[in-house]
Amino acid sequence: MTELTRRTVLTAAAAGAAAALSPAGSQSARAAIPLQGKQNSGWYRYKVGDYEVTVVTDGAATFPLPDKFVVNASKDDVAAELARQHLDPTKLTVPFTPIVINTGSKLVLIDTGYGEAAGAKPGATTGQVTANLKAAGIDPKDIDIVIISHFHGDHVNGLLNPDNKLAFANAEVMVPSVEWKFWMDDGEMSRAPEGRMQGLFKSNRAIFDALNRKVTQYEWNKEVIPGLTAVGTPGHTPGHTSYVLSSGNGKIFIQSDVTNVPFLFVNNPGWHAGYDQDGAMAETTRRKTYDMIVAEKLPVQGFHYPFPGLGHLEKAGDGYRLVPAPWNPVI
Amino acid sequence: MTELTRRTVLTAAAAGAAAALSPAGSQSARAAIPLQGKQNSGWYRYKVGDYEVTVVTDGAATFPLPDKFVVNASKDDVAAELARQHLDPTKLTVPFTPIVINTGSKLVLIDTGYGEAAGAKPGATTGQVTANLKAAGIDPKDIDIVIISHFHGDHVNGLLNPDNKLAFANAEVMVPSVEWKFWMDDGEMSRAPEGRMQGLFKSNRAIFDALNRKVTQYEWNKEVIPGLTAVGTPGHTPGHTSYVLSSGNGKIFIQSDVTNVPFLFVNNPGWHAGYDQDGAMAETTRRKTYDMIVAEKLPVQGFHYPFPGLGHLEKAGDGYRLVPAPWNPVI
Repeated sequence: MTELTRRTVLTAAAAGAAAALSPAGSQSARAAIPLQGKQNSGWYRYKVGDYEVTVVTDGAATFPLPDKFVVNASKDDVAAELARQHLDPTKLTVPFTPIVINTGSKLVLIDTGYGEAAGAKPGATTGQVTANLKAAGIDPKDIDIVIISHFHGDHVNGLLNPDNKLAFANAEVMVPSVEWKFWMDDGEMSRAPEGRMQGLFKSNRAIFDALNRKVTQYEWNKEVIPGLTAVGTPGHTPGHTSYVLSSGNGKIFIQSDVTNVPFLFVNNPGWHAGYDQDGAMAETTRRKTYDMIVAEKLPVQGFHYPFPGLGHLEKAGDGYRLVPAPWNPVI
Repeated sequence: MTELTRRTVLTAAAAGAAAALSPAGSQSARAAIPLQGKQNSGWYRYKVGDYEVTVVTDGAATFPLPDKFVVNASKDDVAAELARQHLDPTKLTVPFTPIVINTGSKLVLIDTGYGEAAGAKPGATTGQVTANLKAAGIDPKDIDIVIISHFHGDHVNGLLNPDNKLAFANAEVMVPSVEWKFWMDDGEMSRAPEGRMQGLFKSNRAIFDALNRKVTQYEWNKEVIPGLTAVGTPGHTPGHTSYVLSSGNGKIFIQSDVTNVPFLFVNNPGWHAGYDQDGAMAETTRRKTYDMIVAEKLPVQGFHYPFPGLGHLEKAGDGYRLVPAPWNPVI
């Protein structure tokens, strides 16, 4: 029997079009079918007890690896880690992954993505949430509650549609009280550094002013809706919130941005993302949260995990490893 | 700031419906939206150089963990490994994942899944290929070539539609010459053990007789179509075939059944699946193939890997680890 060796495989592959091809039959006259260049819609569904979770991706942003995406590691070290993770070391792809929870009585969206206005820009690779909701059979008008984990653009911008109105016309908007207090505090705003932080204060106020600041504040360590408990995971922002979703025998941890992309920060929990407002506190939160998740063997849903964003965590060396859950084709 | 501890998280989650809920506004009168219970269609697309690969799942079969799914390991050891892999240790889910390659001039399907007849059975969780092809915008009539890796039901049964005709009406069917020779040899058939092996001989002959045995045989270490080189990976069956797909700067290894489900056999390459006709030879092939893939850092597409079935392999302990490729929402 023919031996498989690296040499034979690679030689054969390199032989290219010179190799003899099978004789084509009558089908040789058939017209070529054009490449489609279109991806499947980005939604995925699973059960947590009696609840139904629908993951809806907002898309992903790909950009050249910045010099300081990780503020306490060199660009070379980050590039080397990307290569170790079988990824292109010259660029970074960050996915954005809101979820919808149907409790049987309420349809609840956690975080919004960048929203339709972003998606309408030419060449946009984000802003897909509305399209993916619709592909999943969910009308944005049917969303009863939007729960916000924290006030960064990829989590709140989609609250507004391109007309600057609430994109989920019938929804109550719920925000962490700690987060609300920070961003709506004029003293905090006046003390914030110029640049990104001032910009965030302004954009957050523009969004919530457009909603006449009509929000419901929720507290940590209490249920936001039945079965969904808010867990304070500060550091990324002062009021950054994760959740435990529990129904029947099902339980998952919804981590929001406890880590950004797993292929950098799950493996290296000591790395601080430039987006972390307080990198040291974010790291403390991350290690404490992940140790709890590993000990409890909880499935984790991650906003910046690759779609569909559900997996398990393991201890690995000084950090952790994300093991994506197998795709279930039959729910 | 509120402390995250296991106690507070779990206590809070256990508090259940007793916790105070936000006051519901006018939306409290809105009707509940029913759970949908429907999964996204199972297709996913990526580029390999100038070629477009569309993964189309045939679904997955879930069954109680058999006593001898792994012939050289105890059921307890297999159950323990499932638990280590964050899976239910009492049952097994095996996915089936054909792919379509559009070369720009030919539309080529590799393996068929169980096919429409299987999918039409009540409660079927396999036989989804035709539906997923259509969801991906691919008409089965447009398939120019069907390439078969080996003659097991999950790879060949879908050649026939429920009327016992070629399910891909305009396709040339290409089979490995070693595999064809074995299953069509009357001496081999007469010497095959009763039970599963006799059944396989009969069902393979029924399928290819329905096609008047009109197939094109292809050889190992040669291109089957331009850019797709057949690699002999025997053991699972005598003529079991994998492929290197190469176009421009893109190259992937299509492993067929070099392993069955990765969460058992990638981690434990010394385990022999009951489906392996020659377990020892399959293991030798597996280790040699995986060492080559690791050394060459080739992406791997696996028929029994969870959808969408693309990943990278790493050495891990005495075995290997599969790192699934991140889902790309924008191709």
